Amino acid sequence: MAENYEAEQSNQQTHQMLQEVSDALDNGMFLHARHLLKDMEPEDIAHLLEASPPKSRLVLWQLTNPDEQGKILEELSEDVKDGIMVRMHPSQLAAATEGMDTDDVAYLLRSLPNQVSQNVLAQMDAQDRARVEQALSYPEDSAGGMMNTDVVTIHSDVTIDVVLRYLRMRGGLPKATDALYVVDENSRLVGSLLITTLLTTQPDTEVLVIMDNSDEAIPVEMDDSSIASLFERRNWISAPVVDKQHQLVGRITIDDVVDIIRENAEHSMMSMAGLDDEEDTFAPVFKSARNRSIWLGANVLAALATASVSNLFECTLNQMTAIAVLMTIVPSMGGVAGNQTVALVIRGLAVGHIGDSNTRWLLTKEALVGVLNGIVWACVIGGIVVLWKGNWMLGCIIASAMMANLIIAGILGVTVPIMFKKIKIDPALASGMALTSITDMVGLSVFLGLATLFLV
Amino acid sequence: MAENYEAEQSNQQTHQMLQEVSDALDNGMFLHARHLLKDMEPEDIAHLLEASPPKSRLVLWQLTNPDEQGKILEELSEDVKDGIMVRMHPSQLAAATEGMDTDDVAYLLRSLPNQVSQNVLAQMDAQDRARVEQALSYPEDSAGGMMNTDVVTIHSDVTIDVVLRYLRMRGGLPKATDALYVVDENSRLVGSLLITTLLTTQPDTEVLVIMDNSDEAIPVEMDDSSIASLFERRNWISAPVVDKQHQLVGRITIDDVVDIIRENAEHSMMSMAGLDDEEDTFAPVFKSARNRSIWLGANVLAALATASVSNLFECTLNQMTAIAVLMTIVPSMGGVAGNQTVALVIRGLAVGHIGDSNTRWLLTKEALVGVLNGIVWACVIGGIVVLWKGNWMLGCIIASAMMANLIIAGILGVTVPIMFKKIKIDPALASGMALTSITDMVGLSVFLGLATLFLV
Repeated sequence: MAENYEAEQSNQQTHQMLQEVSDALDNGMFLHARHLLKDMEPEDIAHLLEASPPKSRLVLWQLTNPDEQGKILEELSEDVKDGIMVRMHPSQLAAATEGMDTDDVAYLLRSLPNQVSQNVLAQMDAQDRARVEQALSYPEDSAGGMMNTDVVTIHSDVTIDVVLRYLRMRGGLPKATDALYVVDENSRLVGSLLITTLLTTQPDTEVLVIMDNSDEAIPVEMDDSSIASLFERRNWISAPVVDKQHQLVGRITIDDVVDIIRENAEHSMMSMAGLDDEEDTFAPVFKSARNRSIWLGANVLAALATASVSNLFECTLNQMTAIAVLMTIVPSMGGVAGNQTVALVIRGLAVGHIGDSNTRWLLTKEALVGVLNGIVWACVIGGIVVLWKGNWMLGCIIASAMMANLIIAGILGVTVPIMFKKIKIDPALASGMALTSITDMVGLSVFLGLATLFLV
Repeated sequence: MAENYEAEQSNQQTHQMLQEVSDALDNGMFLHARHLLKDMEPEDIAHLLEASPPKSRLVLWQLTNPDEQGKILEELSEDVKDGIMVRMHPSQLAAATEGMDTDDVAYLLRSLPNQVSQNVLAQMDAQDRARVEQALSYPEDSAGGMMNTDVVTIHSDVTIDVVLRYLRMRGGLPKATDALYVVDENSRLVGSLLITTLLTTQPDTEVLVIMDNSDEAIPVEMDDSSIASLFERRNWISAPVVDKQHQLVGRITIDDVVDIIRENAEHSMMSMAGLDDEEDTFAPVFKSARNRSIWLGANVLAALATASVSNLFECTLNQMTAIAVLMTIVPSMGGVAGNQTVALVIRGLAVGHIGDSNTRWLLTKEALVGVLNGIVWACVIGGIVVLWKGNWMLGCIIASAMMANLIIAGILGVTVPIMFKKIKIDPALASGMALTSITDMVGLSVFLGLATLFLV
């Protein structure tokens, strides 16, 4: 299995480079730093910027080659990019966008204030502006917002030889071109011709004979997660985008999809901790504190609700201190067990394995897992408590509460994320905290309730 | 931003299909189910199998077309694949591997018991067996284990016309071929020729003139995470693999890398909940319960340690019940704040943004975030407690404990994952629980300690 915590050769190189560049900056050797940056690829400079604290970032940016700035911006994560772009002049931004793909320019412009992006658009040449404005007219996370408009099209009634001569005359193909698209006289997509097929076919063959005429194309309004899952399943390198009339309007390439696949997977982890997945590791203190405090505020409410539950049992706690000492164990186990189920269900929802057809099966399974683990850990904890506190009844009570809480945790671990998804709240964001609050309160109520009934 | 919880068109289709197929199975209409399966792509059948409970899986598998079984196996996740393969006969397995890529066959064989994989190898033809055995000689998660050996090579002293005629004679190119590799007489890699360049160049040009002679190639021992990060940064479709003598030994393509990128990102989320990232959502109850109980066992120890801390303050708890009621609040906030930092640091470590050069900066930042949020939530909680319990001293005590715990949570959130990484323990797996245990114990000790000093 892939272990992403292992020392990574390429990352180590970046860190050596980072160390070298930041040493140069610290010692005021700006010329040396600029020299170091000149030899680096734009994507490595982007990585360096992302791995730098905010102050060094701005100094580094000043030292980069203006001709490369567009390519560097493309590779930056949103938060870092925004921090840099707000300090650039519209004319600098317009210059940086030259030579960039339409979808990437649109992506950059979206993160700018409206006034600034209008200014940048005004400085672009007419043809580029028209293309970018078209891309901006689609939602950012749809095929229309992601696609590139530089597509090479051919007709089906020509021979391979003609195609080859056309391509040589055209000179240069867009990046990641693995197929030419075959269109009819109304620009409707009728098929595709893999470049590898083109290369291995006799020159006098007609396109019609060898083209792939399956009609799989991405509708312009499809959302980015669906596109990513299609690419992943079909092992595509690129795919055509069509409008409602099945007219070819653009092309999506794997490099843009890879970012979405990684972002979607990271989204689950970051959301479960209450963080935005675009959160910059090196964001300024005040901004970070503000981003996190919403989540802490939600937890204050949850913690107070739990405290109110204990408050209901004040008399019980007053009469037997051992209960207060032990009362955190059952909620803690319920939270851990429930969050295991939540993590499993959130991944299942994200990759599309969980739907109406198997929810009930999964619910039964997780409840039974709760029963099994409930039996095991109820015995363990019950036994330890009997030995520790010398009270059989207390042992039985904590064992029963543990059992009940682990079963409830299993059931809620399935139902809570699915319910959030149904009501269109991001399950990755909300499920963990909702579940922990419920298992805390239920665990505490059952334990303290049983203790009140049988011990006081 | 990509929101992976949105209804996904393609996944909905799969679920309709799943419903249809499982209805057919329930009603004993096996012929109809087989008919439905015949029209589906192998990758969609794989998805269907992954989204099915174990029993339906075996029935479904019996109904698939034997000629397609190899392709379906390739697309399955490890756990699901293992469950199916152990029930197949070596000769069936050998038949299924025909036409599969070398790396995929090696990947399949690795998950079989040694005896069975020897049997399967014995049934393959000599050339295939030699290739697969070579792939098996490299570690699974290295370039050697991932690469394909079907590489198209050319020499630098021929013209484009010769290359084109050679390719036509060869007929058919391996999937995802975006470049031909140029080698010298000793099979050493000297450059690469993009297919798109090949197509747009005049036939009489020599390869030497237009080839890309940058020497970027993947060393055969490079680990899969580094490969994924290189592909992602360089936007590669495929890349050559070389041995220590810089001889070309194979080729890695983006479709295999996409799986690693997603697995690595999922790994962090699943590990933080104490789950294996290959964990099957629909695993049998007993197996799931066993997989999760290790983690629950670790948490039992943590919960008992926390209870022992409260036990030290039994006298204090005995004298003032309000303290027992409020004692869960400070640990809870510390756990949430600390886990936010942990999630951020784990992602930073995984994508290679965090290294020696910026650890101290990050530590200071997270400690300051702790201070800021500490001030805010200490005031809020302190105020609420004063209003609720009417005790100024108690309010001040909980506020001080909150402040201390949030700062400690920030500091530990950075140091704990980095320390685990240094001692080669997976930080995603161990950090969350280690941190929660420490913040629980510290938060409780500070709160109960201060209460003992000032209130009892």
